[in-house]
Amino acid sequence: MGSRIAETVERTKAACPLAGSITNAVTVNLVANAQLAVGGSAAMVNFADEAEGLVEIGGAFYVNMGTLVPVHAESIPAAARAAHKWGKALVLDPVGIGLGGVRTRILLDVKPFRPLIVRGNASEVIALSRLWGLEAVAEGSGPRGVDAVDGVEDALSAARALARFTGGAVAVSGAVDLVTDGSRVARCSGGSPLMTKVTGMGCSLGGVVAVYATQADPFTAALAGALAYNRAGERAAAIAYTPASFQVAFIDELYRATGEDVASQPFEIEEV
Amino acid sequence: MGSRIAETVERTKAACPLAGSITNAVTVNLVANAQLAVGGSAAMVNFADEAEGLVEIGGAFYVNMGTLVPVHAESIPAAARAAHKWGKALVLDPVGIGLGGVRTRILLDVKPFRPLIVRGNASEVIALSRLWGLEAVAEGSGPRGVDAVDGVEDALSAARALARFTGGAVAVSGAVDLVTDGSRVARCSGGSPLMTKVTGMGCSLGGVVAVYATQADPFTAALAGALAYNRAGERAAAIAYTPASFQVAFIDELYRATGEDVASQPFEIEEV
Amino acid sequence: MGSRIAETVERTKAACPLAGSITNAVTVNLVANAQLAVGGSAAMVNFADEAEGLVEIGGAFYVNMGTLVPVHAESIPAAARAAHKWGKALVLDPVGIGLGGVRTRILLDVKPFRPLIVRGNASEVIALSRLWGLEAVAEGSGPRGVDAVDGVEDALSAARALARFTGGAVAVSGAVDLVTDGSRVARCSGGSPLMTKVTGMGCSLGGVVAVYATQADPFTAALAGALAYNRAGERAAAIAYTPASFQVAFIDELYRATGEDVASQPFEIEEV
Repeated sequence: MGSRIAETVERTKAACPLAGSITNAVTVNLVANAQLAVGGSAAMVNFADEAEGLVEIGGAFYVNMGTLVPVHAESIPAAARAAHKWGKALVLDPVGIGLGGVRTRILLDVKPFRPLIVRGNASEVIALSRLWGLEAVAEGSGPRGVDAVDGVEDALSAARALARFTGGAVAVSGAVDLVTDGSRVARCSGGSPLMTKVTGMGCSLGGVVAVYATQADPFTAALAGALAYNRAGERAAAIAYTPASFQVAFIDELYRATGEDVASQPFEIEEV
Repeated sequence: MGSRIAETVERTKAACPLAGSITNAVTVNLVANAQLAVGGSAAMVNFADEAEGLVEIGGAFYVNMGTLVPVHAESIPAAARAAHKWGKALVLDPVGIGLGGVRTRILLDVKPFRPLIVRGNASEVIALSRLWGLEAVAEGSGPRGVDAVDGVEDALSAARALARFTGGAVAVSGAVDLVTDGSRVARCSGGSPLMTKVTGMGCSLGGVVAVYATQADPFTAALAGALAYNRAGERAAAIAYTPASFQVAFIDELYRATGEDVASQPFEIEEV
Repeated sequence: MGSRIAETVERTKAACPLAGSITNAVTVNLVANAQLAVGGSAAMVNFADEAEGLVEIGGAFYVNMGTLVPVHAESIPAAARAAHKWGKALVLDPVGIGLGGVRTRILLDVKPFRPLIVRGNASEVIALSRLWGLEAVAEGSGPRGVDAVDGVEDALSAARALARFTGGAVAVSGAVDLVTDGSRVARCSGGSPLMTKVTGMGCSLGGVVAVYATQADPFTAALAGALAYNRAGERAAAIAYTPASFQVAFIDELYRATGEDVASQPFEIEEV
């Protein structure tokens, strides 16, 4: 697995692959800069035909549901449909799931197109699995803004159910990150607590995973992203102790990290 | 007052309280990062039902009218109505007041819900007081983009009229900041001229005041925000002499500042 | 030419002129901060009447087509019409040209109002010249996200055709930047390869050119902007070797640069 991760990171730097996005206004700049930092190319749009165009010319596509506006009710399902049709990975970050009616409707409209990668915190992954009727989940995980209230391990069965449904991979971010394709579960820890003090770490990870998904299968891409983020987080935390300096150092270290650097971050894979 | 300010700052760090926002695209990232830096939690939305949901689960809500799109014509008044109904503080930043028809209509629709905190530069506060018919104001303060053309003291009677109308507090930003609840006027100076060379200092202050308003009354929250900004501005200006470095240092210092640090910034309160 | 450039830069610092914008969500914060760094004033809007208001009270206007939403189909042509009517420079950055239907329709609607400055990469300038029927261009320059696939010199005849059509200036960004008013062609090189690793360098240059266009003719404004960016890029690259640090240093150096600094950057003007 290590060599596939290193190759993914290095091939991305060489190819400058495009992963277009529909993503939220809060963190869109960080998403684009993170995608550039790992060697990718970024383009953000809102209209359905534009998203379809980017799916077609790009290698993967990223959808983050943060700050929806009405046009997204059509364009997010259209992007998912296009990705499904052309067999390209769509990375879905269901930020804010449970909040408001449009978000729910969009996620139900996306379901038939089985996005190959889902990325979120534990609460979001649990809520998506429940919304899509993939398994019964205990009550009590309502929305609390955009931060997780559930632990990563609590989301394991939801994540596996989602991955089996899509045939792709699911990544759950937390103190320990969890990536699964339904039969394998990778766990990796690292990063820095300062990553929770900067907005957009999860969003930009989704964008980076989409870039990596242009060069690798969903499970490898999601794991490579998680490891790259742990690596950059640890290196940045050795340089900066406060959030804004940390964010600058984080993107710098994401840019610096070689394939070998990323692959040498600790992780464990369990067959389940 | 000093001890209430220190408590507000420290309670915020301990509680990680959520203040949702409808805020402009230019500075939304800085707003969120400033809210996280002081210990709060951030979530930005555009739809009415989402805003109502965040008002319900959060402790306060922030509305900044910078880059309006059509959906805001419904969602900003809905957020104000929800905040009014549930007795939660809504912080209103009437950026760009006077520019275009939608902005005016929204502000008129918000009026019945008396947002508990209004924050703006002198020109914006004067224009809002006039728009809401709270006092006769001399002509000549038309819009000039987003920067103030009036002095802070020129806005004193408008600010007091607004505060008496809402029953909350009004904060006017400038070289000297002014915070009033109608009967008390706090003045504090400090900060740095570089704060005018970085976009979003006022916007992100509004977001921070909303976070503080989850832990304190409107007057205390608005004053705590102004003092925290003066503190961080002064410390950042001791480190950085150019705007982008200054912005990084500013958020870092906002994060570092303790309740005691903020409460020890100079301010004076006058009963009027 | 050097003294006109130095004067443009210095007059901007003294006047704090407003150039409003309709610009994309990805880089809007950097656009505003770059405009402030060179001494200008920024205001971003989406509605037609707001854009018209900013054209009226500002000295120039910037339109960047990155992340369109439906309201822009009306407001971008309205801004162009207002600028044309009042004889103010509109700087058009046709980002993403060729992608989706709305973008094409807007650009066709803008054509009659002949924006006085067009700024883009080589592929965008070639595509705009072709879309407006200004010259036959070889096939094969379809959209590839937002990055250029054509070389700057390949865009020379398209740029000249556009400049002759508008009666203004066209700036093509690349390793060598090219600015033309149809009869003169200025070329300047410099900057840093790191400028391609940070999102929004081109977008924010457009915003800065709009600010300079409040103080100078289109050709001088576009050249001053290109030289200021080369200057800041070179200085920043001497300080920072990684993209996020580079971006911070870049805005800092843009702020520091005097009129003399900018005018002393190398450039050559050819009469054609």
